[in-house]
Amino acid sequence: MGNKKLRVACYGARGAYTYEAMEKQFGNREKEVIFCPLFEDVVKAVREGQADYGVVPMENSSTGGITEVYDLIQHYDCAIVGEQMVKIEHVLLGVPGATLDDIDTVYSHPQGFAQCREFFMEKRNWKQQPYFSTAQSAEKVAREGKKNQAAVASRTAGRLYGLQVLKDAIAFNSSNYTRFFIIGPAMEIADDADKITLVLSVRHESGALYHVLGYFFYGGMNMTHLESRPIKGKPFEYFFHIDVMGKLRNPANAQTLRGIESMSTYFKILGNYPSYTHKEES
Amino acid sequence: MGNKKLRVACYGARGAYTYEAMEKQFGNREKEVIFCPLFEDVVKAVREGQADYGVVPMENSSTGGITEVYDLIQHYDCAIVGEQMVKIEHVLLGVPGATLDDIDTVYSHPQGFAQCREFFMEKRNWKQQPYFSTAQSAEKVAREGKKNQAAVASRTAGRLYGLQVLKDAIAFNSSNYTRFFIIGPAMEIADDADKITLVLSVRHESGALYHVLGYFFYGGMNMTHLESRPIKGKPFEYFFHIDVMGKLRNPANAQTLRGIESMSTYFKILGNYPSYTHKEES
Repeated sequence: MGNKKLRVACYGARGAYTYEAMEKQFGNREKEVIFCPLFEDVVKAVREGQADYGVVPMENSSTGGITEVYDLIQHYDCAIVGEQMVKIEHVLLGVPGATLDDIDTVYSHPQGFAQCREFFMEKRNWKQQPYFSTAQSAEKVAREGKKNQAAVASRTAGRLYGLQVLKDAIAFNSSNYTRFFIIGPAMEIADDADKITLVLSVRHESGALYHVLGYFFYGGMNMTHLESRPIKGKPFEYFFHIDVMGKLRNPANAQTLRGIESMSTYFKILGNYPSYTHKEES
Repeated sequence: MGNKKLRVACYGARGAYTYEAMEKQFGNREKEVIFCPLFEDVVKAVREGQADYGVVPMENSSTGGITEVYDLIQHYDCAIVGEQMVKIEHVLLGVPGATLDDIDTVYSHPQGFAQCREFFMEKRNWKQQPYFSTAQSAEKVAREGKKNQAAVASRTAGRLYGLQVLKDAIAFNSSNYTRFFIIGPAMEIADDADKITLVLSVRHESGALYHVLGYFFYGGMNMTHLESRPIKGKPFEYFFHIDVMGKLRNPANAQTLRGIESMSTYFKILGNYPSYTHKEES
């Protein structure tokens, strides 16, 4: 990068969980942050060169894969250069002076509502208004200043936008994490890269996926995630997005991957990057 | 059922794609239909006995699994007694006399927007307003009668609610199908049942899923769908929802399933029912 200031496209807004993931990845580097309201804007900004990197959520430990992100990274031919993990702790935020009894309308990202489903089952008369992100929901409630409006977002977003916590810990799962991909226009393989993300499809025949997984097993590459995604125009055939532990520079791993490629009808390595566990917990 | 009128809980509203699936399944039987605005209401109505059966979408050939439905069927301990397939053909609907130039706000289910993503990328100044279902979006636009409002829904919904088609075929994929589950409080195994849906989890160790798929492969049971879902409270461990061709009453299939159960940390058969292909295409 040299003297050039880093440009990072970040989904959502200041105070969003994605913003926290970006700070974890690039915290100590001088940077310009481009906030994007849609996942597609982030991926396009990276592909078209307006940003050097992008940060997008790709999996939540309660609600599962954020499948649109998988499709976009593949569609725009971006590479995965890193991952981050952020603990999600949703609270219900209102304007100063509001109480729970004042609320009749709540803004959040649809995932925010999904992660607090049990809390909202008790509040069926409240209007759930889906919005672009949790942080933008907090910003909107703060900006409009109405006592009947609340937002589901992080405590950090509440502090940043001057809202108060009306109800704490409203997610149904206290052990709730979101995993984020750091994407770039091309692969970057750091020395401590130990996780590979790839996407493949197999012949539409019995046992095809089984044989692919056999290559990983006998090649000693532990699969940590598998997500199936539809193939456009081929109803009920699938791409498999797979995360495995391994290094492209390790000849045995490379050999295993060549074997899988030879039996796949589509095969693409999206990245080889340092896993979150590797950096923070070992 | 005898003389008792059939009670069916149906997601969405009259004119919805789910309604079409219900008509395909129960068309010639006298029935009372209970429309439910949330997936959870359908599953609860079946579990608590207000309905004999429920109809919910569970997979779309463009946007993938409707993962909340998987979680709910498992959570409320319902059984899958059938499946249906409906071709999705979204159009943009407006009030009579409106033109494309009048529109600034569009209502649809979030899946409706997702399936028409490419069309809406060109209409970035339109406000996308997520709503409960495509059919309810059409009903709302008809009821409010405003020229600036449109809905993404089926041609059938447009006819039913007296709206006109402003733009035809706006989904990015003309070969777009949704698969529906017919659910009940307990399993019902028809004589022509040939598909099994089950959910399992495996030990968090290398090769565990590979060995499960080996049982299916060597047991001659073709896997047609695999969806991974997070396990609450165990970040980044997964339930696998699996569809395989087979019959519980076939001793060889039953033996294969017993083998898989013995190596699973969780194992539950959700249903054995006649597959759509079996009934319509063979």
